[in-house]
Amino acid sequence: MPLLTYKAIIAYDGTDFLGYQIQASGRTVQGEIEAALETITQTSIRILAAGRTDSGVHATGQVISFTANWKHSTDALHRALRANLPQDIVVKTLTTTNTGFHPRFDAKSRQYRYTIINQPLPDVLRRRYALHIAQPLDVARMQEASQQLLGTHDFAAFGRPPQGDNTVRTITQAEWRTNNADVYFYITANAFLYRMVRRIVGTLLMVGLGEMNVEDVKTILKTKDRAKAGAPSAACGLCLINVMY
Amino acid sequence: MPLLTYKAIIAYDGTDFLGYQIQASGRTVQGEIEAALETITQTSIRILAAGRTDSGVHATGQVISFTANWKHSTDALHRALRANLPQDIVVKTLTTTNTGFHPRFDAKSRQYRYTIINQPLPDVLRRRYALHIAQPLDVARMQEASQQLLGTHDFAAFGRPPQGDNTVRTITQAEWRTNNADVYFYITANAFLYRMVRRIVGTLLMVGLGEMNVEDVKTILKTKDRAKAGAPSAACGLCLINVMY
Repeated sequence: MPLLTYKAIIAYDGTDFLGYQIQASGRTVQGEIEAALETITQTSIRILAAGRTDSGVHATGQVISFTANWKHSTDALHRALRANLPQDIVVKTLTTTNTGFHPRFDAKSRQYRYTIINQPLPDVLRRRYALHIAQPLDVARMQEASQQLLGTHDFAAFGRPPQGDNTVRTITQAEWRTNNADVYFYITANAFLYRMVRRIVGTLLMVGLGEMNVEDVKTILKTKDRAKAGAPSAACGLCLINVMY
Repeated sequence: MPLLTYKAIIAYDGTDFLGYQIQASGRTVQGEIEAALETITQTSIRILAAGRTDSGVHATGQVISFTANWKHSTDALHRALRANLPQDIVVKTLTTTNTGFHPRFDAKSRQYRYTIINQPLPDVLRRRYALHIAQPLDVARMQEASQQLLGTHDFAAFGRPPQGDNTVRTITQAEWRTNNADVYFYITANAFLYRMVRRIVGTLLMVGLGEMNVEDVKTILKTKDRAKAGAPSAACGLCLINVMY
């Protein structure tokens, strides 16, 4: 049987997971997918992912890869995964790729979306997927402040690195959009530090609520001091939507 | 203290409830609201509702009423309810109304929305709030078939009455709308039989999937035989959106 490398784009509802990465105990996205692959192939298979999303964080464009001895078609493996995965994980596409493909190391950039519902009352049907903020947000000021973060900077003030010591990252998109009461933040970078998007959103929300000035964001960046930035915003608003190669 | 009658428009996420109506055991919307009112007023208060939604069915426009000895403002009671209710129930408006107001008996009509996502892959972030159908639906035929139901008919084929024997109801709106992959069914009637909306949707879906003809819907209505209609569609797609007085 041929040993093939597979690449999948997956979506998951982070609500009922302790995050992406497998742990000694508790339900994880990685754990569920590896269990499904073991059921299907009767072998133990380790999967790799573009990013390790936190507990409660969602994904519509996470990328994973794995190698498997599979004698049937890729479509048949896709169907088998669909049949064996729980309802809160969906394999959107499954393709074969070159041996040695690594979804994290080969990724050129990642895009996240953060969703806020900015109206007096919470939207009870979307509370698992958006942060509710009752006080009016000044989105124009949040947009202005977010432009301070564009480019290559040491983002130590907004997170610690998942591994190693390097906290320099390059942000290529930091864009607020609105649609009625919905407020979305789209952010793209070559890579992100641990909880970096949620710390940036937490900080920009302080600007939007008038608790911080636009210029303060630049100052915080320069201090490289995590204590100066806003607290991470709620996990439920965050979604990994795209990984670019 | 004055004994006042209050009317509230409430929203809830039906996912984690055994339905609206209080039961001997299990989490219900009525049970949670009555518990909150007891905490707030230190008295046992029974609430009335416009409709008893099933387990898993959502609401954005359910109407309830209750009488209470409350010496503070209506706004203060609204705030107290917000503070004492779980995240999946929201009191949208609270007003005083005339003594004797009954949200069910006084209602002139009710409007429900049923949501379907019609695309090959499920939307993992909306699986609690919409039915996923992978096969393409012929929405034009579903719309045509739904027009057979407009007006006053004996709807015994689509449900049993919540109480009494009368199965005659008047449907004033039966309208399919689409927005990209989203397919919505809006239905308004003076009142509905038990599981009537879901049985109607289940039947119209058979038309949309080519398993039944447009004319069959009229025939089923005439038989008054529940065994002839489609099975009730999934509860998660259904939402009580409006009660008119």
